[in-house]
Amino acid sequence: MQTFFKVKSAHDIYESLKDIKPLGVEKVHIINSLNRVIATDIIAQEDLPGFNRSTVDGYALNARDTFGASEGLPTPLYVVGEVKMGESPAFVIKRGECCLMPTGGMLPEGADSVIMVEYSQVLEDGMVEITRPVSPLENVIQSNDDLRKGEIIIRKGCLLRPQDLGVLAGLGIIEVDVFIRPKAAIISTGEELVYIGEKPKPGQVRDINSYTIGALCSSLGVQPIYLGIIRDKFEDLKALIEKGLIKADVVLLSGGSSVGVKDITLDVFKAFEGMEILAHGVSISPGKPTIIARRGNKTLWGLPGHPASAMIIFYVFLKYLLGKLTGLSVFDKFGGRYIEAEIDRNIDTKSGRDDYIRVKCSWSGEKWIATPILGKSGLISTMVEADGIIKVDMNTEGIYEGETIKVLLF
Amino acid sequence: MQTFFKVKSAHDIYESLKDIKPLGVEKVHIINSLNRVIATDIIAQEDLPGFNRSTVDGYALNARDTFGASEGLPTPLYVVGEVKMGESPAFVIKRGECCLMPTGGMLPEGADSVIMVEYSQVLEDGMVEITRPVSPLENVIQSNDDLRKGEIIIRKGCLLRPQDLGVLAGLGIIEVDVFIRPKAAIISTGEELVYIGEKPKPGQVRDINSYTIGALCSSLGVQPIYLGIIRDKFEDLKALIEKGLIKADVVLLSGGSSVGVKDITLDVFKAFEGMEILAHGVSISPGKPTIIARRGNKTLWGLPGHPASAMIIFYVFLKYLLGKLTGLSVFDKFGGRYIEAEIDRNIDTKSGRDDYIRVKCSWSGEKWIATPILGKSGLISTMVEADGIIKVDMNTEGIYEGETIKVLLF
Repeated sequence: MQTFFKVKSAHDIYESLKDIKPLGVEKVHIINSLNRVIATDIIAQEDLPGFNRSTVDGYALNARDTFGASEGLPTPLYVVGEVKMGESPAFVIKRGECCLMPTGGMLPEGADSVIMVEYSQVLEDGMVEITRPVSPLENVIQSNDDLRKGEIIIRKGCLLRPQDLGVLAGLGIIEVDVFIRPKAAIISTGEELVYIGEKPKPGQVRDINSYTIGALCSSLGVQPIYLGIIRDKFEDLKALIEKGLIKADVVLLSGGSSVGVKDITLDVFKAFEGMEILAHGVSISPGKPTIIARRGNKTLWGLPGHPASAMIIFYVFLKYLLGKLTGLSVFDKFGGRYIEAEIDRNIDTKSGRDDYIRVKCSWSGEKWIATPILGKSGLISTMVEADGIIKVDMNTEGIYEGETIKVLLF
Repeated sequence: MQTFFKVKSAHDIYESLKDIKPLGVEKVHIINSLNRVIATDIIAQEDLPGFNRSTVDGYALNARDTFGASEGLPTPLYVVGEVKMGESPAFVIKRGECCLMPTGGMLPEGADSVIMVEYSQVLEDGMVEITRPVSPLENVIQSNDDLRKGEIIIRKGCLLRPQDLGVLAGLGIIEVDVFIRPKAAIISTGEELVYIGEKPKPGQVRDINSYTIGALCSSLGVQPIYLGIIRDKFEDLKALIEKGLIKADVVLLSGGSSVGVKDITLDVFKAFEGMEILAHGVSISPGKPTIIARRGNKTLWGLPGHPASAMIIFYVFLKYLLGKLTGLSVFDKFGGRYIEAEIDRNIDTKSGRDDYIRVKCSWSGEKWIATPILGKSGLISTMVEADGIIKVDMNTEGIYEGETIKVLLF
């Protein structure tokens, strides 16, 4: 008996996952914080750079002394000292005075600007002539130009980029609170599967999904826990999923594509107390025979056995779920990595479901051309050949040759 | 005395680095091979899946037996057995016969197609009626449909993606040859720098570049080796660079932005026997005061002290160099991650140099709008605020408000 399919749309599934919470918080040294999700707002506890700095090599002075200065009528100033890098000048600049100033050096009290060395001429007797006027604050980074004390610099839920590590370093923040990386238990089911080290007998194939799904998890900063291959026996499957639920934050089962086995997966999911079936079938193609169950913050996924279908489900749903678990507040401002391309043939699709079409892209000299890869969805080679996928929304009936579409790149 | 500037264009610099070679090769388990660069072509040593598989649940049969079958005139067939997942069928299908067939199961000898269970009706006496015709090979993945023995699947110099790990798994390739990850020695120079754990005195600032440059290296799969902060003393600097040249494949020095120190960096670079100065100044902004030297396959970089400028030089040149060292044959087919955006004000630039302008992007509801961030280039906060950079080529004089430009996203 075929179990009643509780087919859900992508929208329904996002809705039923939207309250998934990030895990706990841990402290890491900033040197290990790249691509981690920050768990608190970061507020500047001090001004940066913290003192007025010169941005050029030249002379620090009072801008007013240079007003009207020109090559024909230069302003002579007394050179009262030289600022050393990394030191606080021990002298003060009065009207009619200046001092030698290196790039990045600290302006002495009394100086409000720096003239570039190119617009000066050294005279005798410790004097220098200035041949151009400067404005107040010209060639100066003020004490709080870079960061102002009390300002929020990085917001909770952002992925830390190299420049973010830079401001943290600049402020002396050595450790940051980041969300704990989620763990994903990965299980492949199917009587026909053998480990990759084994030679398959006729009728058997090697386990592919553990590696593609595991790598997809890694690429999002999620730790894969490989629980191996399991035969389609109710008790064995239940015990292994139980182990996954203890060890990990999400359990990703793939396979079980024949009717009987699909029923076992669903039955096992239902056998966990308090486990709610969110979807038995999803209205996207490929990937329809996906089962999703949830208990609290943990979810169980019965992914299709076809490697390409399982990968599509990962891109469409698991990226969203794992983003939630990772604590990302904004998934990706730009909606992933994509290009605009012109499709080179008509694509007909069935309405009532979102179709994801694999495409290969080539550069025409002027624009990108996307060519659909029309292989059977079970073939992993089609994913290797493809550069990305395009989505044909359930509310459209297809795409016409020559239309410009968005290709989500792998 | 200002040393004569050997200012080079970006094109010249790419030319002088184009023969940089990848490092050696190492074997890794495919589970650790994500984002590694493959060092050999991978050729399929066998067909995949290796046998004819059904893509549906149904009956395997001889297509010819179903020609002309309809609901009104169904074809009766003897059911001679049931194929089990993962097993080679022990029986043969003759004309007038069929067998039960699960999705993913192996077709028995004699069968050339599978009819979906929906188009069959079970009769008494071990017979079934077929109510539709099928074509030969319908609902069948042939033995070599996914991969054909002898075919090149992955080409040398590619970055391994999740689906590539999938085909490697499918073929039973457990270990792959990948290029060894390069190492980058990272040194910050400047009398004004203190470690991030220290409280800077007036005139001092914390070291930012070690963290931004180190993180940029990590993001490309290059291992950063942090050699710390060094004062601008010739002998000390030379000794530390020497150490970097021994430990790493590239030495990235930053800082030394004042005139005197710039000269020391150049002098130290020149003091290494056989070290050729490739550039003393580059025609890009920000980042002009960059020094590049090369001896054999190793290069020394004197990056600007300003964190933002040093990062831009990294994006423009070091990504290219590190790609070469990493063994990438195609850097990125799509030229990095970018979006098309409309610029919201005029940008004037000096001709004779490539300008890199930091921009923040916002979605108007219809398109991306890029707003230039016009802060001083020394400020790390401008990089934090920015989403990416745009390039204004040296052969143009600027960009007009409303033009559509390519934003390279961080």
